[in-house]
Amino acid sequence: MLPTRLQNIRTQIRHGEWTGTTGSLAPGYEQANIVILPENLADDFEEYCHRNPRPCPLLARGSVGDPFLPCLGDDLDIRSDVPRYRIFLHKKITIETTDISKYWQKDFVTFVLGCSLSFEAALMNENIPLRHYGNHTTCAAYVTSIPTEPVGPFKGALVVSMRGIKEKYIEKTVEITERYPLSHGGPIHIGAPEEIGISNLNDHIDGIGINYWEQDEIPMFWACGVTSQIALKNANPDIYIIHAPGHMLITDRQAYKNENS
Amino acid sequence: MLPTRLQNIRTQIRHGEWTGTTGSLAPGYEQANIVILPENLADDFEEYCHRNPRPCPLLARGSVGDPFLPCLGDDLDIRSDVPRYRIFLHKKITIETTDISKYWQKDFVTFVLGCSLSFEAALMNENIPLRHYGNHTTCAAYVTSIPTEPVGPFKGALVVSMRGIKEKYIEKTVEITERYPLSHGGPIHIGAPEEIGISNLNDHIDGIGINYWEQDEIPMFWACGVTSQIALKNANPDIYIIHAPGHMLITDRQAYKNENS
Repeated sequence: MLPTRLQNIRTQIRHGEWTGTTGSLAPGYEQANIVILPENLADDFEEYCHRNPRPCPLLARGSVGDPFLPCLGDDLDIRSDVPRYRIFLHKKITIETTDISKYWQKDFVTFVLGCSLSFEAALMNENIPLRHYGNHTTCAAYVTSIPTEPVGPFKGALVVSMRGIKEKYIEKTVEITERYPLSHGGPIHIGAPEEIGISNLNDHIDGIGINYWEQDEIPMFWACGVTSQIALKNANPDIYIIHAPGHMLITDRQAYKNENS
Repeated sequence: MLPTRLQNIRTQIRHGEWTGTTGSLAPGYEQANIVILPENLADDFEEYCHRNPRPCPLLARGSVGDPFLPCLGDDLDIRSDVPRYRIFLHKKITIETTDISKYWQKDFVTFVLGCSLSFEAALMNENIPLRHYGNHTTCAAYVTSIPTEPVGPFKGALVVSMRGIKEKYIEKTVEITERYPLSHGGPIHIGAPEEIGISNLNDHIDGIGINYWEQDEIPMFWACGVTSQIALKNANPDIYIIHAPGHMLITDRQAYKNENS
């Protein structure tokens, strides 16, 4: 039995009653990126995740044509349980929708990748302030100059998420996030955005989160699941489906035990 | 609240009342390899896992000196919650014990790695026969001729687990195990042991499981967490602690939903 609160959120998402972002929803439960693509690309994509485990920590792979993910949730149905999807069709059309049932194909394979939203509840619980937390928004994400390891048609730059943290909290923030390798683990860079190819913190990826950084904070960067979306764009399959930015899958798994959840 | 059955098993393990192997115990719950080593080696070991994600899928990293793993279990204490440990001291002494509290050091870092025992419940539930399953033993493991990617002092051969599967079940077995990338995922080889450097199926690693293969079965091989133990032996730290073979950590996480558990 799931806690009523998580069950309520899932039911709302399933019925299209919650179509917003999931940041700070269901604190403690593992949130995840989703990628759905045709079987002929699945093995290459899995290997891309394996070769790039910091941005693409693989939590589960669905069976061909099977929309259920029993290892992440008893009744999870990937066709309806993400609040908002993006479907990329015929290399040019993008559809945004809250249910993909009518687009489901019998050759689809689902991949579920960890997400840094999962460790934010742990940071908040240990009194590390995150200014974006609590209003269901996500922090900013940036394309870096660091390449990922290519596999087949999948390749591209590493994407990072950024959180502005006061100097006195940096050590603790590293320590807490390191505990969550399935949520990208510890930061990949601290302090000097230009060293990883980010010349201006306002040049974040459009449509993904908000730049909350302030002058008295140090920018900290974590590998980000959006990396997989760049790799998908480069592979450019005839059809693939991802979650809309910030609209993650909420799983039954507890990434962090929160007594209040 | 944990199901009573899992709570009972944990309590028995914690108090030294269950000191045996964990195969087929608590079906559906994620079982895991553990590695505990001094902080000065922790970052290299984490990177070794990241570079070799099939044998070493990293589930969690503990904070320095902290024996608790809240992301894997509310009350998990790594000092007592594994049924049997092996402690390697001063590069020559090996101690086997059921509780490591008196050996705990304030510079210890715990790593938890996925394990193929987690997907065996799923195979059994879909009527794939595993002859070793049900009597708390594990299947055989082998050192292959495939090298892992080295990081710092960590290096060595890939170790695999082997299950004999009848030909008619092979496709289904691949499909099911592919769903569990955190439990080593799909097989890395099927059918010809000599192609991965195994000349005789009776030459399995001593003390880890039993060779249950029969003539009418195809040997299937999966990447195995014992790979990390070879890498540790090669790194040869002054002190490190692992679980005794087959005596895994049972986490609160459900790797597979089993209605009977």
